[in-house]
This record gives sequence, structure tokens and C-alpha cells, in this order.
Amino acid sequence: MNKYISPRMAAMKEYVPNTDVYRIRLDANESPFLPDAETRQKIAEAVAGVSFNRYPDPLATEAVKKYGEYIGVPSDLITPGNGSDELINVIIQGFFSHGDKLYITPPDFSMYEFYAQLKELRIVTFDRPDSMYKIPCDELIKDINDKKPRAVMFSNPCNPLGQAYSREEILRLAGSVDALCIIDEAYMDFYGDSAAADVSDFDNLIVLRTASKAAGFAAARLGFAVTNSELTAVIRKVKSPFNVNSLTQAAACVVLSDPEKLKSVTETIVNERKYLEAKLATVCKDGGFELIPTVSNFALLRGKNAVKVFEALKKEGVAIRCLKGEYLRITAGTRAENDDFLASFKKVLKEV
Amino acid sequence: MNKYISPRMAAMKEYVPNTDVYRIRLDANESPFLPDAETRQKIAEAVAGVSFNRYPDPLATEAVKKYGEYIGVPSDLITPGNGSDELINVIIQGFFSHGDKLYITPPDFSMYEFYAQLKELRIVTFDRPDSMYKIPCDELIKDINDKKPRAVMFSNPCNPLGQAYSREEILRLAGSVDALCIIDEAYMDFYGDSAAADVSDFDNLIVLRTASKAAGFAAARLGFAVTNSELTAVIRKVKSPFNVNSLTQAAACVVLSDPEKLKSVTETIVNERKYLEAKLATVCKDGGFELIPTVSNFALLRGKNAVKVFEALKKEGVAIRCLKGEYLRITAGTRAENDDFLASFKKVLKEV
Repeated sequence: MNKYISPRMAAMKEYVPNTDVYRIRLDANESPFLPDAETRQKIAEAVAGVSFNRYPDPLATEAVKKYGEYIGVPSDLITPGNGSDELINVIIQGFFSHGDKLYITPPDFSMYEFYAQLKELRIVTFDRPDSMYKIPCDELIKDINDKKPRAVMFSNPCNPLGQAYSREEILRLAGSVDALCIIDEAYMDFYGDSAAADVSDFDNLIVLRTASKAAGFAAARLGFAVTNSELTAVIRKVKSPFNVNSLTQAAACVVLSDPEKLKSVTETIVNERKYLEAKLATVCKDGGFELIPTVSNFALLRGKNAVKVFEALKKEGVAIRCLKGEYLRITAGTRAENDDFLASFKKVLKEV
Repeated sequence: MNKYISPRMAAMKEYVPNTDVYRIRLDANESPFLPDAETRQKIAEAVAGVSFNRYPDPLATEAVKKYGEYIGVPSDLITPGNGSDELINVIIQGFFSHGDKLYITPPDFSMYEFYAQLKELRIVTFDRPDSMYKIPCDELIKDINDKKPRAVMFSNPCNPLGQAYSREEILRLAGSVDALCIIDEAYMDFYGDSAAADVSDFDNLIVLRTASKAAGFAAARLGFAVTNSELTAVIRKVKSPFNVNSLTQAAACVVLSDPEKLKSVTETIVNERKYLEAKLATVCKDGGFELIPTVSNFALLRGKNAVKVFEALKKEGVAIRCLKGEYLRITAGTRAENDDFLASFKKVLKEV
């Protein structure tokens, strides 16, 4: 082992993106919809006009303005990031010292722990009973007040469990704990009860949003941190000065110019998730799976045969996600993709 | 003060990008040249073909391959970043624990200290005499061996001092110190004596490169970390999985497809820097400035009136950089921009 690699780093859990080739990709909670031809053409034109030799606008002013209008938040409370991924790292780097306690609620998005490891934080968790898919808000508040972390970070709606707290619950949480509350609303477009517009009422509420899911813009890497003006100042100070490239900024201005289209695509995705869930509800029991209904863009199954079914689907050219050896998370695709998946799933259930 | 903002973070030195509007921008060491119309058209076409709804290729395989061919390094030793900026942060997060010593040689690129603060490192520095623009290699080695840092990080050629170590000196340094050597070659295209192809001969050499300077691609945010395979594995593990967006990847494949054009533009920029220096050599003494010749894409002046001249140029609509209250760094622009700057500079010298 190279002596410049610390044991901590050698032991660090890796995030391994799935780069294999599949017939259908329902594994990354991406939108199944490419922008239409007209939008793609406008994106190409906007990008052709970029000053390629100049550094980007540090605050992605125009894109942030449009996103602010979309979610109903003033743009001076929004900081753009190279995906919300980068903003998780920026917030951890900016608000924590090594050894501080970060409270998370596994199973949750794995990057919280990833960046916490890099900052040498101590992780504290809610000890979730096996059958609890949503931690009751009051239990969560009590546990946080007992464990006294510097900050709480979780996804709402939850990825992968698909459950959500209402806006009212999130505000109650933020008002009841002495900790920074970092709420990752990557999947909020599918649920529609955001706390983003309330950040100025709290000294401890940061909401993360992304264009990677409902907005169908994962390729461009664009996320947003929404918080009160004091905390916004820290995030803007800690982020890399030129973190969001100009091509993404130009393309985002096109994509975000048509909120009605975004909302309609989001609705279609929610309907496809409901379709998937309805079909799966009757099928999955044959394979010993429980359907856990979600409020997100994916269907969730739980069962002992999860790994076997996952591997068998892989051989069929169908990518989904297998978590903790017992959950299957299936991103809602187009109707054709969903039907194709369902046919493969039925076939595979007979074989395992 | 919000109680979630730590005193360390409140005290952190901020990097303030210059977002004012100027007639001429010679302040950010950008290339003055936009890609030609044909290249811009090809970029637009490439971007129109991006799968916007899908996450990017985590390793930017095609762009990295082309860059590897350009600098003569196998692509499996190259990790792409969202600018070399991000890679500085990734390397600091990946190879250091809080409290470790990072050795730097100020004045140098300010982001080394910026990210070191976020990781709570201890900074150790070479105590540079006032008149020393290049630290002799042997003095540097001796000082590093005395101070025993975990790593050494500096720009080569140096930004802002414009001096460079030869490849042979860098290899001697890496072979003579028990520290990770992180050499930021952002300006190396202008000097042409890179150590990037030698990384596999060392267990402690990391070379950073960027497409933001000579390649004229600052808007796209694309940097590269070049190191041996063991250290590459760590960098790839620590970086955000989808750090370089697909638009940048697609555009980079176009820009990097014509190495001859890149080399010819680089040569033009070097000639413009020489032109600027030749003109400034005769003019600057009138204002009490010393010209410090560089091997980079900027001219460097030192003098007591630096701040006054900087402010007066600002009023003329000319942006340059003023450093430490006594240096003026002027990026080589187009011939027209350089002549315009020189005229303004002469005018301003008479006034201050």
C-alpha cells in the first residue's frame, strides 16, 4: 500500500456508479424523458453563444432566477451547485468541524455518509425498527434532542424508502431541535409539499433541490441550496467560486423557461409510478415481495429474493437498484419501459 | 451572528470573483480567444446530442482519452474534475486528516489555502525573501525536509510570480522529499516542460492540469489530476461520482480533437505575453515599476503605485489583477486588447 494513502481513506466506502450497458435503465431515479426536439435545439443555440474562454458567472444568476420563480423563492436565498451532491459537500465542509456529530436516518442517500467520512464527522443515526418506513415526526424530534447532533440531514421524500414528511412536519422539526436541519428535497417535485419557501422563518433550515430528477436534467449537474440569508452567505463563501459551468447555466435557462412543461412531465412521471405500483401490487406477492407505496418517482419492493431477482433482471438487460439485500427500487420509466420491465419481472419471478 | 456559523468559518478568507463589467478583461488569466465559428457550431451539435435526462459518464472517458493523447499520458492515470479547483479540494479531502501540515509557497494560487481551511489543515510555508521570485530547488527541498509536511502544493509555472521549475527539478524534488508533491500545472502549456508523463515513476507525485487557460475552455470547468495508478484509485474514489457534466464532456471532445489548433493558439498567447513584456519593459519604469519576466500567459509588474494604477485602470474600464498591494498581473489579451491596455496604462502612469 502506498504510504500516502491513510487507513481511513483506504477503508472508505466507495460509491460505485453503474456504468454497464442495459436495455432499460430504471436504476438511477432519472427522468425517462429527454427534452423535446425544439428544446434541445434551443439548448444547442444557447450553448453556442457561451463565452467559452471566460469563467462562468459564480452565482448562475439567470438560471437561479428562473429556478427561484419555479419554486417560489427569492433568488438571493438560492445558491447553485454542481448537482446537489456538491452542495452536500459544501455544507458539510462549511458548517462542521471534524468530530462533529451528523445525524442521519438510514437507509438514506449514501452520499451523506460519503462526505461525512471526508470531513471526519461522527455519524449518529435513528435506530429504525425493521418495519418502520417513516419515523414519526415526534419520535424523530425526541431522538435528535437526546443525541444532540450539530446537524440533521435526510432526504424528503426519502430515497430509498419513498415516504415523506409534510411541510408542516418539517417546520415543526426545525422549530423543535437545536441543530441545523438539512432537508434534501431531490424528490420533492413528485410530492409537492416543499419547505423551501419557509427558510427565512428559521435560523437552522437548509433545503436542497435538484434539476436532476423531475426536471430531467441529470446530465447537466445542477442543484440548489435554499436557506436564510445568513446561511446563504456562508454557503456562497465556501463553495468553489466557479462551480457551475456556463454550458449548464445556458442550457438550464432554456429548460427552466417553460414551467408548465416541467410540471406536466412531473405529473406524467408520477402517473407512471402509480401505474407501476398498481401492476406490481398484484404481481409481486407471487415472488414473496411486499410493495411499499411511495410518493416519489420509483416503486419499492421488499422481499427475501431481492438479490436473486435483481441479478436475473440484470441478465435480461434490465437495470434496477437492489438495496440492503432486500429492497428493489424501480424508477418509473416511460410506459413502454415499465411494461417491458413488468414482463421481465414476471418472467424472472417464475425462475427464481 | 447565527449560532450555526462557527467562528472558524466566519473568519475564513473569502475568494471574491470579479464580476464587474469592464471594457477589457485581463484579470483572470483566461485565454482571449473564443473557439472559431466552426468549432462552436460543432460544440452546439455535440451538446444537442447529450442524453440530458441521464447522469454523466463518471470518468468522462472520451474527453479524458483525448486529453491524455494531447499531453502524452495514458488515460487510466487521469481523473477529470469540475475544473482543477475541484480536484484540489478532492485531493485535500482524500489525502489529509485535519491538523495535517500542508506546505505552500506564497504568493501562490489562493485556493490552496481556501480548501486547506475547509479541511482544518495546518499551513506551513517557505519564508520567501522579498526579492526571491523563484525558490532555488535545493533550498525548497531542504526546507520541506526540515518542516516535514504531509504534502507540498504549488503552481508550476507559478501564478502569480510567473517563474517555473524544469521537469528535471520537479522530479528531483519528488524524489528527495517524504511528502506528497501536488504540482499544479495550470499554466504549463505556456512553458512546455511538464512532469505529467513521469507520475508512474514516483509514489508521491500528483500533477494537476486544466483546460481553463491555454485551451480557452474556462467556461466549461474541466481539469485533470494525473498520478500513478494507486493514487488515481483514491482520487476516483473520493471525487463526487458524477462531477463532470455531460455538456462539458461533449464540448471538450470537440475542442480537444484538434491539438494543432490548441498548440497554435497557445503559441499566439505566448507571443502576446512577450509583446506585452517588451512594451512594458520600456514604459513601466516611468511609474516606478519593475518588470518581472514570466514564462506564462501574463506579464508581471511590481511597484509601490500598484494599487493606485490598478484603481485608475479600473476607472478606464480595464481589469487587471493587483496582488499583495504591490504586484500588477496583466493577462496577455489579443493584440488589440494589449495595445488598448498599454495606451490606458501609459495614460494612467502620468496621472498617479
